[in-house]
Amino acid sequence: MTAFIRDQWYVAAYAHEVGRTPLGRTLLGEPVLLYRTEDGRPVALADRCVHRRFPLSEKPSRLDGDRVVCGYHGFTYGPDGRCVSVPGQRRIPRTARLTGYPVVEQDAFVWVWIGDRDPGDTLPPRAPWLDSPDHTVVSGMEPLDADYGLLVDNLLDLSHETYLHGGYIGTPEVAETPITTEVDEKSRVVRVSRHMDDAACPPFYAESTGITGRITRHQDIEYHAPCLYLLHSRVAPVGTDERAFHVEVVYGITPSTEHTTYDFWAVARDFALDDQKVTDFLRESNHTVVMQDVVALNALQKALDTEPPGYQELSINIDTGGLAARRILARMAAEPA
Amino acid sequence: MTAFIRDQWYVAAYAHEVGRTPLGRTLLGEPVLLYRTEDGRPVALADRCVHRRFPLSEKPSRLDGDRVVCGYHGFTYGPDGRCVSVPGQRRIPRTARLTGYPVVEQDAFVWVWIGDRDPGDTLPPRAPWLDSPDHTVVSGMEPLDADYGLLVDNLLDLSHETYLHGGYIGTPEVAETPITTEVDEKSRVVRVSRHMDDAACPPFYAESTGITGRITRHQDIEYHAPCLYLLHSRVAPVGTDERAFHVEVVYGITPSTEHTTYDFWAVARDFALDDQKVTDFLRESNHTVVMQDVVALNALQKALDTEPPGYQELSINIDTGGLAARRILARMAAEPA
Amino acid sequence: MTAFIRDQWYVAAYAHEVGRTPLGRTLLGEPVLLYRTEDGRPVALADRCVHRRFPLSEKPSRLDGDRVVCGYHGFTYGPDGRCVSVPGQRRIPRTARLTGYPVVEQDAFVWVWIGDRDPGDTLPPRAPWLDSPDHTVVSGMEPLDADYGLLVDNLLDLSHETYLHGGYIGTPEVAETPITTEVDEKSRVVRVSRHMDDAACPPFYAESTGITGRITRHQDIEYHAPCLYLLHSRVAPVGTDERAFHVEVVYGITPSTEHTTYDFWAVARDFALDDQKVTDFLRESNHTVVMQDVVALNALQKALDTEPPGYQELSINIDTGGLAARRILARMAAEPA
Repeated sequence: MTAFIRDQWYVAAYAHEVGRTPLGRTLLGEPVLLYRTEDGRPVALADRCVHRRFPLSEKPSRLDGDRVVCGYHGFTYGPDGRCVSVPGQRRIPRTARLTGYPVVEQDAFVWVWIGDRDPGDTLPPRAPWLDSPDHTVVSGMEPLDADYGLLVDNLLDLSHETYLHGGYIGTPEVAETPITTEVDEKSRVVRVSRHMDDAACPPFYAESTGITGRITRHQDIEYHAPCLYLLHSRVAPVGTDERAFHVEVVYGITPSTEHTTYDFWAVARDFALDDQKVTDFLRESNHTVVMQDVVALNALQKALDTEPPGYQELSINIDTGGLAARRILARMAAEPA
Repeated sequence: MTAFIRDQWYVAAYAHEVGRTPLGRTLLGEPVLLYRTEDGRPVALADRCVHRRFPLSEKPSRLDGDRVVCGYHGFTYGPDGRCVSVPGQRRIPRTARLTGYPVVEQDAFVWVWIGDRDPGDTLPPRAPWLDSPDHTVVSGMEPLDADYGLLVDNLLDLSHETYLHGGYIGTPEVAETPITTEVDEKSRVVRVSRHMDDAACPPFYAESTGITGRITRHQDIEYHAPCLYLLHSRVAPVGTDERAFHVEVVYGITPSTEHTTYDFWAVARDFALDDQKVTDFLRESNHTVVMQDVVALNALQKALDTEPPGYQELSINIDTGGLAARRILARMAAEPA
Repeated sequence: MTAFIRDQWYVAAYAHEVGRTPLGRTLLGEPVLLYRTEDGRPVALADRCVHRRFPLSEKPSRLDGDRVVCGYHGFTYGPDGRCVSVPGQRRIPRTARLTGYPVVEQDAFVWVWIGDRDPGDTLPPRAPWLDSPDHTVVSGMEPLDADYGLLVDNLLDLSHETYLHGGYIGTPEVAETPITTEVDEKSRVVRVSRHMDDAACPPFYAESTGITGRITRHQDIEYHAPCLYLLHSRVAPVGTDERAFHVEVVYGITPSTEHTTYDFWAVARDFALDDQKVTDFLRESNHTVVMQDVVALNALQKALDTEPPGYQELSINIDTGGLAARRILARMAAEPA
């Protein structure tokens, strides 16, 4: 498995998922409770009552104002994690406190800091298109029964679009066109670019933009290890660069357990902003594409689980970005906490 | 997990479940076959044919008079476990014998002794209300995907009624009222009492007794470690002690495998004995309450299965009975066989 | 578990299952891809792309002429396993090659050699009735959640027909009649014979042959360790040997994983060759019998999985053939590769 990398921000949920009903997510193996206070502030606490470990996100646990009440014996906690009430007695043990997690709401995501150090001034990487009036967004989250490293591999090598997503977003040119890769070791960003000068227009773009002929197509990947993946996608009819369409594809890649991952996906466009048909089409089409990945990655995980020790992969040029990402992840995992 | 305690009587089944069809139960990890001879005597034998370990409770295994015939190759055993017939030959190997288990039918339960010693004169603890003309009984059994210790914890601390079973048998007064705890180390009985002088009447009692106002409510627990739990429950309208209603709640807590448990539950009442509506209501209502526990305890087991080593619970006054029960169970498990 | 025996031919599929759609089977723990070239030749290759281990039998992997194209990134392989195309570059790494498996089509089966040595002149054992104009065949394959050794045990001791398959192919005489056993250590064949001179005719034969009275019934087993099991079955009305009916029952016993097995079964008859009603009846009837075995063997495996270490079976005369088979399998597994 790909090692977990602590002391990092992770996408825990979409902002709209966190509200006045307790929500439970497992992040890097840690059960986390998410909710919002009455004034709208997101809260992230350990999702285990200190008494008998009942999940505070599980019914009949519930919110009482800004507090959460355990559904088993009524232990009650404030948004800072401090226990404020226990059954049958006035005295509240000093150690009765839930671990609190640093939490930030940014770009339509609720980000949670998993680690031992304090985040200090560190903020999550940005994906501003998800919360911008100049873009229309479709999004979702699919749980993956696979190591998060398999999703990183998948997204950093888009040549798979031609095969796994043929008929949706793949065309022969994606696999044929060479990539350029840039690695920023310091900021831990991997950039992979593929510029196609004359390519078929896949249904994903043809139906959403109305383009009927061939296109120039730019795929510029920016992977901020470990959690945020951005694909700046640009298509335009060949020879008419002034009519370019931009799509920002965003993935939050959040390890849940050793072999499960939250796959947050979003597609933001700068055209046909109010066209509900385009919105519906892109949501449906991208969901299909994501599910093709889910099925494939779950199959890969099963293959991994049963393969003999010492199995060797073979890498080629298209893997340059993915291998760079793996190296960065391995180095981050090995850093002293 | 909570250690298994051998050389004890355990509830294997309700008497009505054991009949002329082979019944298989796994008790403390041991597969046990239960059936009745033609004259009605319950029999408990190892549920594995000595030949190729086919379960004798599995079809097409079947009874032939007082004998059980293996459904795979026809090995046939008497109620004492001795093999009396094998296919293709007259000579029956001397060692062809199923382990027999001591078995007692008592108080509507079939009890089986699991252990290496002989029970001698030891009899199971009593729950006479389950088989008494002065009581009407509703009962059931729910399999639990949880350590039996979690059920012991649950039942010895009824403050959870207020939260997990609110709207059924819980009211605020249960969690608020302090308990008294008594431990009889020698007979291995834990007693926990909670007497409420002026409490709301929960639907469980309001609908079954017809009481409309507030009540005095007594909960007197008697836990006979490891297997039998009794709750002597008494409710009466405030100020009218002569009109008290009694309910005896009985649990048989039988470990099946390390993480599964048989949760036998019964409710015996001394009022409205022939009122079918009350019977139906109490069966339905108590089943709902038991299922709330099942869901919660299964969730706790999942939390336990994934928690890091060294996780610390926090205990308070309400846990005095449960902690005493754990100590007794641990001591019993450590005793020389 | 029963040890895997390498350097042997195994039934991988029925010939009719292998065609122009990629088929995946796991043989002795190894994922194997099966398909046919355009000229009809069966191909067996490792079912993992050398790049990122995507299963070549999994959609959208597909055939392109005689080649197979990986559904993830388009790596393309010839029927000899050599990679002939990769995305985004002309140069194909020298090591890009799938392991090929020796494959033979014989007697309606596709046989694959699993091992490290070359098969040389060794051919799979024969079951010619499955592909003969003088016989009509019904067949199928059932996956078993059990060690293949349990299926070997099962088939070598047919006394279980009386109990597990009573009302189908079992009658009291099968279990009652002694067997003779012969072991050919050199060719690794175990022969078990049971000749019944005067037996009830079970529905399986009564309905298919039209015999109404008692029969002579011969069961002559020939087990070619590890994979092929033949039962030469002969029934005739008592006293009329010239009117004998022959059924050849064939099993391919192929270990898949440590606890799963492919159970290939076929029934070839030399009578009523064109009678569709008999064909339908025998297919249905034998499928029922196989499923009775599947249910029983899966139950045995569960019993095995939970039994304490050191559990002792008890064997009697009927087990002579099965024990001989186990000895041969153990010796083969211990042989130097």
